[in-house]
Amino acid sequence: MSINFVPNNIPERTIERLSEYRRTLLDCLDKGITHLYSHTLAGIHGITAVQVRRDLMLIGFSSDTKRGYDARVLVEFIGDILDDRNVMNIGVVGMGNIGQAVTGYFTGKRSKLKITAAFDIDPEKVNRTIAGVPCYHFDEFQEKVRKHNIKIILLSSPTSVATTFVEPIIKAGIRGVLNFTSKPLNFPEGIYVEDYDIITLLEKVAYFVKECEALKRK
Amino acid sequence: MSINFVPNNIPERTIERLSEYRRTLLDCLDKGITHLYSHTLAGIHGITAVQVRRDLMLIGFSSDTKRGYDARVLVEFIGDILDDRNVMNIGVVGMGNIGQAVTGYFTGKRSKLKITAAFDIDPEKVNRTIAGVPCYHFDEFQEKVRKHNIKIILLSSPTSVATTFVEPIIKAGIRGVLNFTSKPLNFPEGIYVEDYDIITLLEKVAYFVKECEALKRK
Repeated sequence: MSINFVPNNIPERTIERLSEYRRTLLDCLDKGITHLYSHTLAGIHGITAVQVRRDLMLIGFSSDTKRGYDARVLVEFIGDILDDRNVMNIGVVGMGNIGQAVTGYFTGKRSKLKITAAFDIDPEKVNRTIAGVPCYHFDEFQEKVRKHNIKIILLSSPTSVATTFVEPIIKAGIRGVLNFTSKPLNFPEGIYVEDYDIITLLEKVAYFVKECEALKRK
Repeated sequence: MSINFVPNNIPERTIERLSEYRRTLLDCLDKGITHLYSHTLAGIHGITAVQVRRDLMLIGFSSDTKRGYDARVLVEFIGDILDDRNVMNIGVVGMGNIGQAVTGYFTGKRSKLKITAAFDIDPEKVNRTIAGVPCYHFDEFQEKVRKHNIKIILLSSPTSVATTFVEPIIKAGIRGVLNFTSKPLNFPEGIYVEDYDIITLLEKVAYFVKECEALKRK
């Protein structure tokens, strides 16, 4: 992961957890659960209640009801922190399996984030609607980013060509990149990049499994 | 992310970076680059040279050559830390778009990690070879995990049914889970779980983009 700027003092991990809390709270509301204790929320996420309370204190949320946090109020509170007032538009570069999976998976899940365009060079994909999103030829990237007011790029091209998109992304005025390729990408300050590499995480899981087995043999 | 145990004192983030360094080093070796300075490696990954040196010190690697780290030696050194002596087998539960994308993407990328079986309930997928891997009915899960000596599960089922796989995964003796669904899952101590949720990361990118734009308006 690479951070080029830290715009305020909420830690990255807290931001991730706020997003996760919100998803859990929405899930609970769906099931008719309106209040949750910090230790309940903590248990669902495999962390301590102290961590949950610390995260919520950081964003200035407190609750003194005996029934725990009011889920609906907390969802709105987290929304005020995480979401922009306006919808933020996202473009997908590379509509292979991963690009399509993510687009299909994401569509309709969040009202304030919207995948509005996709880009590829495959004639089978260009000028078609894929997973509910229009797919344009990458030659039209600059123009369509402007037209759709796209701020974030989800990069799911083959790793071998990942670096060729860095310049066009900078030139188009993109502010954030979620990088699904296995190539770490360098962007100038002011563009937030999140690397989301599957091999790294799988290697990490394998490492902890190996270490645990070694401990058991001792 | 949830960690149920920490088997030694190498931080999680260092493990992630070691995996990333290795990929970069292999990439450099492919291009005929045999030596790298810590600041070169740092630049590629958007971190400081101090961080790189600290990570390598933690695993006991030092280099006193004037040409920087010997890429080949460092790759082997990292391999001794990360990899098991034997191949570790992985099973995929849910062969939808994401399961297929990850399987196709991963196959052949690492010699010590191997996706050897997939599971689904869709008659169109069961008993076929998909992305190079045999896909079995989930009814055969316990038997095939044993037969293929599978240690790690990559869970890419629909989120709505994610929790139904927890019990079978525990019962089958699985040691590590990479969870691609949006549902945090609770496993007992001794099973390492890594949550890999796309919505969380996209929300995080959007948050930092929003904050940066707000700063610029000030």
